[in-house]
Amino acid sequence: MDHSASRNAPAPTALPLSAVNTPALLLDNDRMQANISMMRLRAERLGVTLRPHVKTHKCPQIALAANAGQAGPITVSTLKEAECFFTAGFKDILYAVGIAPNKLDQVARLRRAGCDLKIILDNLSAAQAVAQASQRLGLDLPCLLEIDCDGHRSGLQPDDAQLLPIADLLRAAGVSVAGVLTHAGESYNCRSIAALQAMAEQERKACVDAAALLRAAGHACPIVSVGSTPTARHARHLDGVTELRAGVYIFFDLVMAGIGACRSDEIALSVLVTVLGHQADKGWVLTDGGWMAMSRDRGTARQVLDHGYGLVCGLDGQPVPDLLMTDANQEHGVLSLRPGAATPDLALAYPVGSQLRIVPNHACATAAQHSQYLVIKNGGTHVEMIWPRFSGW
Amino acid sequence: MDHSASRNAPAPTALPLSAVNTPALLLDNDRMQANISMMRLRAERLGVTLRPHVKTHKCPQIALAANAGQAGPITVSTLKEAECFFTAGFKDILYAVGIAPNKLDQVARLRRAGCDLKIILDNLSAAQAVAQASQRLGLDLPCLLEIDCDGHRSGLQPDDAQLLPIADLLRAAGVSVAGVLTHAGESYNCRSIAALQAMAEQERKACVDAAALLRAAGHACPIVSVGSTPTARHARHLDGVTELRAGVYIFFDLVMAGIGACRSDEIALSVLVTVLGHQADKGWVLTDGGWMAMSRDRGTARQVLDHGYGLVCGLDGQPVPDLLMTDANQEHGVLSLRPGAATPDLALAYPVGSQLRIVPNHACATAAQHSQYLVIKNGGTHVEMIWPRFSGW
Repeated sequence: MDHSASRNAPAPTALPLSAVNTPALLLDNDRMQANISMMRLRAERLGVTLRPHVKTHKCPQIALAANAGQAGPITVSTLKEAECFFTAGFKDILYAVGIAPNKLDQVARLRRAGCDLKIILDNLSAAQAVAQASQRLGLDLPCLLEIDCDGHRSGLQPDDAQLLPIADLLRAAGVSVAGVLTHAGESYNCRSIAALQAMAEQERKACVDAAALLRAAGHACPIVSVGSTPTARHARHLDGVTELRAGVYIFFDLVMAGIGACRSDEIALSVLVTVLGHQADKGWVLTDGGWMAMSRDRGTARQVLDHGYGLVCGLDGQPVPDLLMTDANQEHGVLSLRPGAATPDLALAYPVGSQLRIVPNHACATAAQHSQYLVIKNGGTHVEMIWPRFSGW
Repeated sequence: MDHSASRNAPAPTALPLSAVNTPALLLDNDRMQANISMMRLRAERLGVTLRPHVKTHKCPQIALAANAGQAGPITVSTLKEAECFFTAGFKDILYAVGIAPNKLDQVARLRRAGCDLKIILDNLSAAQAVAQASQRLGLDLPCLLEIDCDGHRSGLQPDDAQLLPIADLLRAAGVSVAGVLTHAGESYNCRSIAALQAMAEQERKACVDAAALLRAAGHACPIVSVGSTPTARHARHLDGVTELRAGVYIFFDLVMAGIGACRSDEIALSVLVTVLGHQADKGWVLTDGGWMAMSRDRGTARQVLDHGYGLVCGLDGQPVPDLLMTDANQEHGVLSLRPGAATPDLALAYPVGSQLRIVPNHACATAAQHSQYLVIKNGGTHVEMIWPRFSGW
């Protein structure tokens, strides 16, 4: 079944889930709205601007919902996201992946078209490329300097000897040093609320310290940008920070629940699957939702509670105790019970043709396997709306 | 950069890879053609029809190449593939995932439109649903019975007590029992050529035995279908088998190389990435190809040689000794050297803005992250053609 005719608009008649072609991506709108309200309230209380990351959902309808209906500030992970969200009306866009020199012409085109696109970098080579492009094009290409707060990925140390030379090189070429940015990716490895609070403070301090160093050398450094969903949820204060980036909170997922960044009943995303058969002797239920529908993400494998490829719920979104998606082929899912669980007659409990919902490990990875969201109410069994999502670069 | 304008047609001027927006999926056409020829020759020598699986590539141009330019028999893993390849001219299509009752109307629509679509099932419930749909619609819905040859996934045992009751139920309802099918998924866990040859024989025998049982009861069972790329490459004979299914051989990948199903220089797929920066103290090169471009597949993690997220090659496709993609964020790849390798100055060897190619663990998973193939010659550094691929259900 092709749902594309009804994209972008509420379904004319609410489609029952039983008539949906599976596998399909379901979005619980009530849970999503609650997650959005929670993070907006947190940003307000912390005294910072919320700049939601759109990389998780890649859907303009959701970006609008996350900004209370306004085309407010957003964070993107690709220039395709920048293009698509600019087309959808968003102007204040931060591209939060270190700039590659061969992407500068595309950045310049977007800025000339009226997009207030800001880029980031963490090394002298990239700064030289930006300075040269800016002078060649006669166009400011405002940059934030990326700071490493936790050894997780990229970024300059907060007191890096290269920080000032890079900022000075940009300024000398007429490029705005718009601020500093960091991302506490290591927060995904925290295992307690206290550890998340400490990580949030480490993230805040690294970014604020780098800003102070730049300001002492005469750089205004207006933006001080931090964020990851776990630290955003647990930061005790964000003094000195101007904006908060987070994205996965909009949906949440099992990895976030395992970290302590959400409860599992806050997770808004699931994949609807249909039972194809059983292997009774192995205790397997086979479904039409394999790794192509869930992604290969096994993010809970390193957590205390490994959920396999996902947690199994009934059509109403309530978890089926101890039933997991334990294995996956491309278009086959294997569901089985946790060791020690009481074993019902699986073929009787989950007959061929019946439907289940699988809550994913990692919302960003699972959503990326789909081209649309079938939007439902909490506990609802009808599709209320269909929202498209894009992918690629 | 959007390459969509040149989709479906040779690029008017060969685009240098240096002008390609990264990350991007590259397809070495010479290697692909050699892989295709190898498997066509094997099928010919084994005396079976080759029914290539299109789930790996999802691209009509490639399906045509795999069938020597003809819209020959194919295997699909989704009804969307059946729809798209039927639209592209393919008629003899086997949908090799157990049928869900709610997909039968779509199967019927395709058959009425002239598609010789065959479905598979492995249980009485599904057979009853097919029988009922066939009688309700007044239409034959030819079925193959799925046989389990290795305990890997779904299927009836070759001597299953349900085999004849299911075949008889279908026949009584006027549904054609078109044959038997099996897939040796466990071949992916073989670790020697001898083990692959033994697995190929186990796969062959299971399917031929089931066919014999059906024939003894008066079912013609014209199709006896086996296949997985590793067993297809190493089967010593396929006596009694009528057709061979395989798909990943068209591209091959690191998992196949680890099994012994190919050499690493036969792998036709890679992802072009650009260097964004370095973390010198950690020995990291950071690129713009993260797990979104490679997929989360870590299929070599359980093999003797773990290649991380992929093997790093230069622009010419030659491997860089000991350099691996060791970690991935959504849009960041981390490259580093195997422990013990001599450490060059990474920033000098792989400067910001330079390009590399990453050979993937699993071709099906990596290709699925992209919407097109940039087709190159072996060792070539220009895009010769752009072929679209589809995704979804």
